[in-house]
Amino acid sequence: MQERLDELKSLLGQVQDLNAAAAVLEWDQETYMPDGAAEARAHQVATLRKLAHEFFTADEVGTLLEALAPETQALDPVSTEASLVRVTRRDYDKALKVPASLVAEMAEAVARGKQTWRKARAENTYATFAPHLERLIALNVQKAEALGYEDRIYDALLDQYEEGMKTATVETVFTDLRAQLVPIVQAIAESTPPDASFLHQPFDTQKQWDFGMGVLKDVGYDFDRGRQDISTHPFTTSFSITDVRVTTRVNEQFLPSALSSTLHECGHGLYEQGIDLALERTPLADGTSLGMHESQSRMWENLVGLSRPFWQHYYPQLQAVFPDQLGGVSLETFYRGINNVTPGLIRVESDEVTYNLHIMLRFELEQAMVEGRVQVAELPDLWNAKMEEYLGLRPETDAEGVLQDIHWSLGAIGYFPTYSLGNLMSVQLFDQAQQDLPDLENQIASGQFAGLLGWLQTNIHQYGRKLQALEILQRVTGQGLDAGPWLAYIRQKYGAIYNEF
Amino acid sequence: MQERLDELKSLLGQVQDLNAAAAVLEWDQETYMPDGAAEARAHQVATLRKLAHEFFTADEVGTLLEALAPETQALDPVSTEASLVRVTRRDYDKALKVPASLVAEMAEAVARGKQTWRKARAENTYATFAPHLERLIALNVQKAEALGYEDRIYDALLDQYEEGMKTATVETVFTDLRAQLVPIVQAIAESTPPDASFLHQPFDTQKQWDFGMGVLKDVGYDFDRGRQDISTHPFTTSFSITDVRVTTRVNEQFLPSALSSTLHECGHGLYEQGIDLALERTPLADGTSLGMHESQSRMWENLVGLSRPFWQHYYPQLQAVFPDQLGGVSLETFYRGINNVTPGLIRVESDEVTYNLHIMLRFELEQAMVEGRVQVAELPDLWNAKMEEYLGLRPETDAEGVLQDIHWSLGAIGYFPTYSLGNLMSVQLFDQAQQDLPDLENQIASGQFAGLLGWLQTNIHQYGRKLQALEILQRVTGQGLDAGPWLAYIRQKYGAIYNEF
Repeated sequence: MQERLDELKSLLGQVQDLNAAAAVLEWDQETYMPDGAAEARAHQVATLRKLAHEFFTADEVGTLLEALAPETQALDPVSTEASLVRVTRRDYDKALKVPASLVAEMAEAVARGKQTWRKARAENTYATFAPHLERLIALNVQKAEALGYEDRIYDALLDQYEEGMKTATVETVFTDLRAQLVPIVQAIAESTPPDASFLHQPFDTQKQWDFGMGVLKDVGYDFDRGRQDISTHPFTTSFSITDVRVTTRVNEQFLPSALSSTLHECGHGLYEQGIDLALERTPLADGTSLGMHESQSRMWENLVGLSRPFWQHYYPQLQAVFPDQLGGVSLETFYRGINNVTPGLIRVESDEVTYNLHIMLRFELEQAMVEGRVQVAELPDLWNAKMEEYLGLRPETDAEGVLQDIHWSLGAIGYFPTYSLGNLMSVQLFDQAQQDLPDLENQIASGQFAGLLGWLQTNIHQYGRKLQALEILQRVTGQGLDAGPWLAYIRQKYGAIYNEF
Repeated sequence: MQERLDELKSLLGQVQDLNAAAAVLEWDQETYMPDGAAEARAHQVATLRKLAHEFFTADEVGTLLEALAPETQALDPVSTEASLVRVTRRDYDKALKVPASLVAEMAEAVARGKQTWRKARAENTYATFAPHLERLIALNVQKAEALGYEDRIYDALLDQYEEGMKTATVETVFTDLRAQLVPIVQAIAESTPPDASFLHQPFDTQKQWDFGMGVLKDVGYDFDRGRQDISTHPFTTSFSITDVRVTTRVNEQFLPSALSSTLHECGHGLYEQGIDLALERTPLADGTSLGMHESQSRMWENLVGLSRPFWQHYYPQLQAVFPDQLGGVSLETFYRGINNVTPGLIRVESDEVTYNLHIMLRFELEQAMVEGRVQVAELPDLWNAKMEEYLGLRPETDAEGVLQDIHWSLGAIGYFPTYSLGNLMSVQLFDQAQQDLPDLENQIASGQFAGLLGWLQTNIHQYGRKLQALEILQRVTGQGLDAGPWLAYIRQKYGAIYNEF
């Protein structure tokens, strides 16, 4: 068995190396690459990804997995060996189920779809994008059929991003969440908003950058195994457990932008840096799902970074950096200002209260499309109607409505709900951390984050992909997915800020 | 034929992509990679280089080359098609001649050799490095025998870096050069050196960087297809003709360091950026030899960047940037100061006059070692004796003598002479450029570099590897390799600075 395991690890190591190299090239493309290199870079990344796919789907890998499955049966399922064989087998089966012709068709449809979407959004012409979306939905249906599913066709698509999660589970949780959240948002919309005007003035970008770097260091992001750079769209990427990089953006005219993006990506980065080094160069060396990943980014961005204790510690420092802008703004005013809730049309600009409504809308529509209950032509009207129902706002153009996100043009169906799953899980997990670490709030208020980070590493990060998201949730909290804790957190926090509800 | 050519290009394109990806990873390693990532990165680069080698040496490539050789025979030898088949065939034959076992042995010897060399240099213990050097020489002899040669064993090694060049040619040229250069250096060493003390004082590093960036733009380095970063050891790398990057270093206490390294790497970079875009993603998209590459870097660094016309244009700007340090230093004093010649023990710190003597010494010793005329144990004494003979200096320690360079520890034998070949060719080519562009000196004196760059692109850069270095030299100057022009340039320039000879 050991010999076969070593051989498998060597084959998978090669695949990891190729994918890591592609990730380095993509990181470089977003940070430092000169503009003129785009075409050559596209060739290079395509070659690396193609070879990684070929090597991963080789018969050799299948034969080894076949032989190793019974041999590792008796092992502890959380052992590296058993996990490696089990998880790789799932990946392998999925990779083989989708025919190369469909992968190629999808790639072509995405290339065209993305280009058309950009133009359609800029020119507000949904009709030009519609046929592309139609094709992308049809290809996703084909893909779902190829991947197979037991209950709902959407299960197969969701499983690509959130392994082990079922459509029915998400639906139940979201229905409950929506029913309770819409009235909260309505109540907030009718309340007097806190003053947030002081956040909109010039803040020196270098000083913002330096402050963010200090916070990254403080919370435990390891700069010996990572770095932060600037990019248009912030992201986290990982080339190995020892090289996990984040990017951020800095908005001179709006203070919260840089720090929230830094803490968000930091949360992703801490997850990747916290994976057991024994899993290096294997497919286990990754976050277990997009939802669990997002639970980490949102925990640091919102539950920590928008909390009163966090700013009890940092606000005096921030005031010292920006005395002209913040010298006359009290901690309480600052705290309320950064937690200002304003229902808006655009998902990526939305606050932590309204965000999930944007997601639910997309989840309902994309699910209905793959199930054939909604046609692409009906989409703009349905979108607008739901926006009005959930957020009390109606987009005036499709550009600020159905055309606003890139995801569908990339053929990514089943991706959106993971954002909300992350939000919900972040509170379920944070509640447990607070129970296990009764002193946590005080620690944060004195700038001590090692307790929380250690708890996350022990309970979540170290496992990589050994455990699925719902397994982690169950082990850590004793519960399944539940919107209750998130709703309770929102009610408590925003009830205090908006006295009216 | 077209179909086979397309197939060959597609196979070679994949190899280029893999090597380009490895180069991106290596660039990242020297510029931005966090320290903790070293081991993972080594795996990644090794995988990419191994796959590139495997794909390049595939039977398929050989079969296509076999079929295409007669088919492209009738074409213009400088056509892309004929060149591609001819040059790839040479690379392919060489790659197949060296057995994989020898490649692996060499890689292991280099890994150990490099590590031991670092320690030996730090601790000044040649004896610990000697057995490693012995092994590296023995493996180089095996490699040379595997590659094959007609006249001299060293030909096979030299040919790896300077294709088409013969040991006998280098020997003849170097013998002539040495005979004339030693007395020049002696005369200079006995003269009164110009004042260079003003170069050694604090110069703000950001201002030095900005000045260098301005010069890069002025001379025509294309930032849409390249960029400059900081690294410990400056280098140039290329991931495609549209992505050629340079690095530099900035020494706060010594002004010439940054600008000379910027102009040196810029010369390499302009060469790579000037290659015909039709050669993209083929093995032809590279400089034709290390010597020709060095001719470009040394031309910009020395013939342009240390010339009087260049500083007639730039010195007032530099004085404006550093008024405190240079306000009271005249152009003539500055020009003489940066052209100060001081024989020293260390090659990488040497000036353009003494540099070639450092190279000749190494060439003679490494050649004698592979021919079995000199034993590794005799090396330190021989080194020191030659240093005394050529430069009038005797190293007190092996660390500043035979142990100073990394090259031999990397198993690179046949590499050193290309530095001097570059110096000699740079003047042969520049003389021709001056004949073809009678106004060149005035252009440089007014900060106009398009004339020179266009001439280099037309006569050298565009060809990539279509023509070998000696073919280019012959076509452009009508001459073979010749030390005469370089000696004449040195006599004229330094005769004026050092009135005594």
